[in-house]
Amino acid sequence: MKQKKIYSVIYVTLFYFLVFDTDKGWTQTPDSVVIKKISDEIFVSGQLYKNEEYLCKKIGARLSGSANAEKAVQWTYNLMKSYGFDTVYLQEVMVPHWVRGEKEVGRVTSTIESASVDITALGGSIATSKEGLTAEVVEVKDFDELKKLGEKGVKGKIVFYNHPFDVRMIIPFQMYGEASKYRYSGPSEAARYGAVASIVRSMTNYVDDYPHTGSMGYNDSLPKIPACAISTQDAEYLSSVLKSVGKATFFLKMNCETLPDVKSHNVIGEMRGSEHPEEIISVGGHLDSWDLAEGAHDDGTGVMQSIEVLRTLKKIGVKPKRTMRAVMFMNEENGLKGGGEYANQAKKKNEKHILAMESDAGGFTPRGFNMTMPEDKKERIRKWKGYFYPYGAYDFTLKGGGADIGPLEKQGVPVIGFSPDNQRYFIIHHTAMDTFEQVNKRELEMGAVVMTMMVYLVSEYGL
Amino acid sequence: MKQKKIYSVIYVTLFYFLVFDTDKGWTQTPDSVVIKKISDEIFVSGQLYKNEEYLCKKIGARLSGSANAEKAVQWTYNLMKSYGFDTVYLQEVMVPHWVRGEKEVGRVTSTIESASVDITALGGSIATSKEGLTAEVVEVKDFDELKKLGEKGVKGKIVFYNHPFDVRMIIPFQMYGEASKYRYSGPSEAARYGAVASIVRSMTNYVDDYPHTGSMGYNDSLPKIPACAISTQDAEYLSSVLKSVGKATFFLKMNCETLPDVKSHNVIGEMRGSEHPEEIISVGGHLDSWDLAEGAHDDGTGVMQSIEVLRTLKKIGVKPKRTMRAVMFMNEENGLKGGGEYANQAKKKNEKHILAMESDAGGFTPRGFNMTMPEDKKERIRKWKGYFYPYGAYDFTLKGGGADIGPLEKQGVPVIGFSPDNQRYFIIHHTAMDTFEQVNKRELEMGAVVMTMMVYLVSEYGL
Repeated sequence: MKQKKIYSVIYVTLFYFLVFDTDKGWTQTPDSVVIKKISDEIFVSGQLYKNEEYLCKKIGARLSGSANAEKAVQWTYNLMKSYGFDTVYLQEVMVPHWVRGEKEVGRVTSTIESASVDITALGGSIATSKEGLTAEVVEVKDFDELKKLGEKGVKGKIVFYNHPFDVRMIIPFQMYGEASKYRYSGPSEAARYGAVASIVRSMTNYVDDYPHTGSMGYNDSLPKIPACAISTQDAEYLSSVLKSVGKATFFLKMNCETLPDVKSHNVIGEMRGSEHPEEIISVGGHLDSWDLAEGAHDDGTGVMQSIEVLRTLKKIGVKPKRTMRAVMFMNEENGLKGGGEYANQAKKKNEKHILAMESDAGGFTPRGFNMTMPEDKKERIRKWKGYFYPYGAYDFTLKGGGADIGPLEKQGVPVIGFSPDNQRYFIIHHTAMDTFEQVNKRELEMGAVVMTMMVYLVSEYGL
Repeated sequence: MKQKKIYSVIYVTLFYFLVFDTDKGWTQTPDSVVIKKISDEIFVSGQLYKNEEYLCKKIGARLSGSANAEKAVQWTYNLMKSYGFDTVYLQEVMVPHWVRGEKEVGRVTSTIESASVDITALGGSIATSKEGLTAEVVEVKDFDELKKLGEKGVKGKIVFYNHPFDVRMIIPFQMYGEASKYRYSGPSEAARYGAVASIVRSMTNYVDDYPHTGSMGYNDSLPKIPACAISTQDAEYLSSVLKSVGKATFFLKMNCETLPDVKSHNVIGEMRGSEHPEEIISVGGHLDSWDLAEGAHDDGTGVMQSIEVLRTLKKIGVKPKRTMRAVMFMNEENGLKGGGEYANQAKKKNEKHILAMESDAGGFTPRGFNMTMPEDKKERIRKWKGYFYPYGAYDFTLKGGGADIGPLEKQGVPVIGFSPDNQRYFIIHHTAMDTFEQVNKRELEMGAVVMTMMVYLVSEYGL
C-alpha cells in the first residue's frame, strides 16, 4: 500500500510536467486550455470572495427556520438569476425551528470559589426551567467511565464529558469523528443513568475560551435533559477544580426551544447540458449555519464556491455537455431536511445524477477530493490528477462525500467531497469566530478552481 | 455536522490506516515506528510554538546589527544549551547595520488634493535630505516602460514602479520572483535615467494598506537615490490620481542610514553522529528579521522548527548515525553574511555536509520539499515520499533550497527547502503584520514533523 502510494505520486509528477510547463505556459491540450481559462477567470475576476462577504456581513447567521435563512435563500436565488443560469428555482422543504432564546448562563461553584462559565446550548436541546438548574458535576472521559459510575454515581448529577481531541491524529476531522459522539449522544447516555443535564468539552483541538455548539439528538426511550458545551479552556478549569477540590456544583440556565417546523427552501441553479442533458452533475454546500456567527467556513464558502463553478464555466464560454447544478441545501446543521428533500425529488422525477459534489469542510487551501463510488469510477477521476496537482489537490485516496449528498449516495449516486486543508478548521467550527475575516481570498479561490475543473471534466467525459 | 458525516470520517479512518494504523502504531517498519514517535512528540509535547511566542513577544523585531538581534542570539544559544545538545556554539560574523531612523513621511499632491501616504524605506536605501524631497511622479509598469521614457521622461522625477503580482500564477513565490526585481534593482535603474527617488508598489498579491519593506541594492556605477515602498492600496490610489489628473508630485522624507558593520553571530547546535560523525546534516532558518514586526513567519518559524528537529530526536531517544546541526543564520534579510560565513567556515574546516535544509517560506501547512542536488539523490529522497504524504508533504518536484544555504550549494552541497503552502505568505511578508498571532500552532508543528522526519531518514541512510 505504501509503495503503491509512492509510485502513484511519482507517476503524477511526471504527468504534471507533461501537462504543465511553467516556462512556456501550459501545453496545448484542449482541456488544459480550458483549465487555464478557469484558473485565470477565478484568480483575476472571481466573484466568490465578495459574494462570501455579502453573505457573512449583510445577512450573517442563518439557522434553519430563521428570518436570515430566508434572506439567504432569496439572495442566492437572485444572485444566480443575475448570472443568467438557464434555470434558477426554489425547492420547498419543511425544516426544524430550534431557537436559542436569551443567552445562556453557567456557573461553577466549589468550596474554594465560584466562577461564571460561558456555555452554549447544543442544537436540539431542551431548556432548563426558568430558574435554571443546579447539581453536582461528575466528570467522565468516555462512555466506559460513565458506565462504570452507573446510576449510583450519576443519578441527580450533571455529567461532564471531558474528552479531548486526540492531537496525535494527523487529520482534525478524524479527531472530530472520534470525539463528537459525546456531544451528539452524550446527553441521552447520561440520562440513561439518571443525570439531570450534560456538559461537553467543545469539539476542538485548540485550547481557547469560546464554546462550540453543534447538534445533539435525544434517544426517545430515555428522559430528555438539557445539554450544553463549554470551551476547552473552561473544561480544563472545571476538571482542575474537580481534581483539586474533589467536588463542585454547576448552575446552568438555558432558554432554548424547539418551535413547530417551518417552510424553507433549497436553492438550485442549473445550466442545461447540450449533449446529455439528462445526466446531472450537482455541486453544492449548505446555506444554513449555526446561530452563533456568520457561518463563513461552515458553509458560506461551500455555497459560494458552488455558484462560482457555474458562473465561471458560463463566463469563459463553456457549453456544458451534461447538465450542471449548483445546489444550496437548507438545514444541514440540525436536521438535514434539505439534502433529504433534494434526493426525494430527484427520485420522484427520475433524475439521473452521475455525480454529486459537496464542499463543506471549510474554504481553505485544497488538499484533494474524497470519493464514495465504484472503484472504476474512482480510477477515471484519478486519471485527471495531473491537472489538480499544481493546485495542491493531490489526495484522492480517502472515502467521503458530504452530509447533504448522503441521501443521494444512498440511492447509488457517486459522491465526491472537496477536501481542503483542515488544520485550522476547528478553531472556528460552530463558534462565534466563524466569520468572513477568517476566510482567505486566494485559498477560497483555489478551492473554486479545482471544483470547477472537476465539474468541467466530468461534464465533458461523463463518469 | 451530521452523524452521516461522522460515519464517513470513521470509514475514512479505517481506510487510511491500511498504511498508518494509529491503534497499533504504524505498520511495523522500524522507521515508521520512529516517525510515529516524532509525530506524537511534536503534536503532544512540542516546544516550538511557545518558543516562537517567546522570540516574537519577548524579543521581537531583530534586524541585523540591532540589540534585539543579539538578544535573539543569546536566547537561542541558551535554549539549545537547555535542551542538552552535544555542542552549542556561536560563529562570529560581521553584518551590515542599516537603521531606519525616525518614521518616514510621504505625501502625494495633485491639483485636486493632497494626501498623506504611508511609506517604508527599503533596506539599504539612503535617506533623503533632512527637509525631504519633492518631485513629480512618473509611473511605469516595468523596465521596458522606463527605458521608453528615457532620460527625457524621467530626469529629475520620482519613478513609481507599479508592477502588480501576476495573480494568474498558482504559487505566490513565483509572483514574487517575477515582481521583486523592481524593488531590488528598480532604484538604480531609475537613477540611470536621472530619477531623484523611486517608489515601488509593495510585493503582495493582496490589496491592503500597509507597505512591505525588503532589501534593495545599488549599482555602484550609478548615483544612489532614496527608495521606498507604498502599500498596494496606495499604489492603486497614486495610479488613479496620475490617470485622472495627469500629474502629481510626491514628497518623501526618509531618515535611514547605513552605520559601520557590527559583530554578530550564527548560532549552532549539534548532535554528534554515532556511526558517521563526519557526515553533517544541517537544518536551519534565519534569526534576523526586518525591523517592522516580530519576524514571526520570516523567519522565527524556520528557526524554531530547526531547533525542534534536534530536540525531538533527542527526546525520543534517537542516537543519530550522522551529525545533525540546527543553524540559526544571521543577516539573511539584508546581506546574507551569516550564510556566507557558515559556508566559509565549513570549507576551512573541511567539513562534509551531506545535506543542508532550510525553512524560510513561512510556518504554514506543509506542501513538500524543494531540492537542488543530483538526480540520483533526489530519487533516494523521493522513495521516502510515502512517509510524508499523510502530512500533506507530497510535492517533491520543484527546484529550491534557501538563501542562507546558497553558499553551501555553490560548494556542491545538496540542498533542500521545506515548502509550506504559501497562499497567505504575502499578506504579512516584510510588514508590521508578521506577528505571532499569524502563526497557527498545528501548521507550525506539521512542518516541524516533516522536517524532523527528513533529517532522521537522511541521518539513518545517508544520501
